[in-house]
Amino acid sequence: MHNSKTFNRFLDEHHERFLRELADFIAIPSVAAQKRGIQEMADLLTERFRKLGAAVHQYPLPDGGSPVVYAEIGSGPRTLLIYNHYDVQPEEPRDLWHSGPFELARRDGKLIGRGVADNKGTLLARIQAVEGWMATQGELPLKIKWVVEGEEEISSVHLEEWVKAHREMLSADGILWEGGGYDEAGRIVMAAGCKGIAYFELHAQGPNHDLHSSLAPIVPNPAWRLVWALSTLKNPQDEITIDGYNDHVRPLTEEEIRLIDALPFEAEVFKANVGLDEFLNNMDARSANRRLFEIPTITICGLDSGYQDEGSKTVLPARASAKLDFRLVPDLTPDLVEELLRNHLDARGFSDIEIVRLGGEKPAKSRLDSKLHQAAIAASQDTWNKIPIMYPWFAGSGPMYPLSVMLNIPVLSAGATWHPQARAHAPNENILERDYFDDMRFTASLLAHFGQE
Amino acid sequence: MHNSKTFNRFLDEHHERFLRELADFIAIPSVAAQKRGIQEMADLLTERFRKLGAAVHQYPLPDGGSPVVYAEIGSGPRTLLIYNHYDVQPEEPRDLWHSGPFELARRDGKLIGRGVADNKGTLLARIQAVEGWMATQGELPLKIKWVVEGEEEISSVHLEEWVKAHREMLSADGILWEGGGYDEAGRIVMAAGCKGIAYFELHAQGPNHDLHSSLAPIVPNPAWRLVWALSTLKNPQDEITIDGYNDHVRPLTEEEIRLIDALPFEAEVFKANVGLDEFLNNMDARSANRRLFEIPTITICGLDSGYQDEGSKTVLPARASAKLDFRLVPDLTPDLVEELLRNHLDARGFSDIEIVRLGGEKPAKSRLDSKLHQAAIAASQDTWNKIPIMYPWFAGSGPMYPLSVMLNIPVLSAGATWHPQARAHAPNENILERDYFDDMRFTASLLAHFGQE
Repeated sequence: MHNSKTFNRFLDEHHERFLRELADFIAIPSVAAQKRGIQEMADLLTERFRKLGAAVHQYPLPDGGSPVVYAEIGSGPRTLLIYNHYDVQPEEPRDLWHSGPFELARRDGKLIGRGVADNKGTLLARIQAVEGWMATQGELPLKIKWVVEGEEEISSVHLEEWVKAHREMLSADGILWEGGGYDEAGRIVMAAGCKGIAYFELHAQGPNHDLHSSLAPIVPNPAWRLVWALSTLKNPQDEITIDGYNDHVRPLTEEEIRLIDALPFEAEVFKANVGLDEFLNNMDARSANRRLFEIPTITICGLDSGYQDEGSKTVLPARASAKLDFRLVPDLTPDLVEELLRNHLDARGFSDIEIVRLGGEKPAKSRLDSKLHQAAIAASQDTWNKIPIMYPWFAGSGPMYPLSVMLNIPVLSAGATWHPQARAHAPNENILERDYFDDMRFTASLLAHFGQE
Repeated sequence: MHNSKTFNRFLDEHHERFLRELADFIAIPSVAAQKRGIQEMADLLTERFRKLGAAVHQYPLPDGGSPVVYAEIGSGPRTLLIYNHYDVQPEEPRDLWHSGPFELARRDGKLIGRGVADNKGTLLARIQAVEGWMATQGELPLKIKWVVEGEEEISSVHLEEWVKAHREMLSADGILWEGGGYDEAGRIVMAAGCKGIAYFELHAQGPNHDLHSSLAPIVPNPAWRLVWALSTLKNPQDEITIDGYNDHVRPLTEEEIRLIDALPFEAEVFKANVGLDEFLNNMDARSANRRLFEIPTITICGLDSGYQDEGSKTVLPARASAKLDFRLVPDLTPDLVEELLRNHLDARGFSDIEIVRLGGEKPAKSRLDSKLHQAAIAASQDTWNKIPIMYPWFAGSGPMYPLSVMLNIPVLSAGATWHPQARAHAPNENILERDYFDDMRFTASLLAHFGQE
């Protein structure tokens, strides 16, 4: 095992410098959806890996995609592949931030900024943990391969293709996924899979320019077309009504239901945090918990048409669009969902609604009993003196499929920084300063356990 | 009759100065919906009336409403009330303008700028016509009362109340309404009524902040709530489905149908101008023309929720809203419509959808055979050598009800500047320079005929 005393002393000594490095990461608005700051962030990360002593290379992706930053360091009987991403969600709505989204703020024990939780915090903490290990323990006990992509927030549009082209290079005994944290009750949570995702824009076109709304009796309104089309996809009972959709939803196994029902779920705390009196459809906590894992969803992430400013404007808009996020459970895939959606709309007279796919990821499940999982449980005990809760998969999505399912490597999402009010994807995204350094302690301990013969 | 030769010479001599004055009117962004530039515009207009020699007064309105600018000039056996408005629609979307919306542009015989068609052009042209009359013909043959409001584009929210308080002052023999022009075939069109309007915002509220969309299985999404609620108001056959709504739609009389069916309607030219292959529901030209007058409408003027920028953001939005414009035919009124809408939504489980009323106007019809109408027909013959088409009412809306119906004064919307591609309420709003001066000729001729014993 490693000497945690010298390791911890190193963290204390380098506390402020580590946070300055984090501030540098946050300062770059690497918003993949808007192609902002991507190359700059890839370069800063590459430079950080170089300072660590890792062999590092940027893999450019086709169509101007964000480069994959790949790094290797150490050697040993086992190989740990670490997956993170350096891109972030857009910062809008800006006016709800209490400080600049790209200036790391320290308030009330929190570190606040776009990407600090998702995912630059854990990304950098793991690099700093390896630095700390080498400075205090010497040689690494295993080989580490880092895959850090810059398109996670736009559905990792090129990752599957890239992984296919580098299968050999990516061989490993386990994948430490993006990150992890704890739930409302402070229980450490880890996950060995995730839902898939398909993200679409729906576009409706009306007249060739905005018209005076007095023409509404005779001119088709694209906003109405869009509303009618959307209303056929899901009913007010929140059931997906796309033709044939539910035939592809594999029911949970008895074993999965047992695992899920055994998971803790702090329903009241959750509802209070997000300001809800009741869950959707007034469901109880047990149903809510099961649904989180069980069901596929269609979320309207955005609606856009016509006049949106203050007051009234009597306009018949030329265009309307919606952004839709489909979360997928087995055996739904992005290709299948797009086909079902197109057929469903066509069958109802909505062939005028254009579908633009912005990305997709297949769902992924992994075994739960590998050496990696054992090492993570031990590291959780070392770091927090707690046995973690093992989720069979997260309700969220991520590009686990290409790395874990395609390469057949056990995967686990685990770490210290994700907490229930982290506001990932929302204004005032944050992590706790304490958790940031706990992530380094957890990582070091995981390296020790996983590297052990 | 007046001496049109000396009048026309005056217009020629003052052509450039008149357009500079128009440019000054356009330069003030008097957007009532955004409370921009209103007082500045009221002051400029007041000053212009003073220069004309009129007695002018600004009537402040409650709740910070735009003041009514009221002016009187002349005397004679008859009184003509002129209605115009000095506020304009918002200029958005700005990037579709080919020149600054608030800089009067002269291109290809056109005058381009926000408000030039609706309604600052006719407003100023009528003042300049009166100036021209007095400079070339001497005394006015009648008394003119101008009511120029600054809230027409936000449904004249205070006008009815103001008219009630000034009944005596506003007595008149006829009302020359906002403006007029010609259709696709160059036929002069006038109207003696208009539809009513009720404008609402619908708001749906979800969680207290934007959430990661992986929580969609258990958290209500306000964008879905809004889509479902909207989809119950009108079906894809474009029929309004609000409970009890159609019971209040008075069927057209045989006489009205005869009048409407006799109206010319350049269906193919209209479709080409707005880029449509077919009218709504593939209706034929005769049905389209009748529907324009006959039916009430619900137009989605705007949809707003969540993420609308480029690319994908996996967010479950906290809020969603829609702007809805209801055009009313007798016997629908804004109050009745709001009540029916609220009851309809409540009955379907949508009591969570908040309704905010932004304004409303009742429908208005007027007799078609008054002295004013006769004078306008004669003025049309003088100006263009054409008999005008008399519409029983416009498909558009305006605050005719308080002035015409409440005060029981015949009303007619007539003028020279409205043409089929004027793009009122849209980018690149324009009138023809020629029509601007024709409006003055038409006004002078109308004064002569209406003032005649």
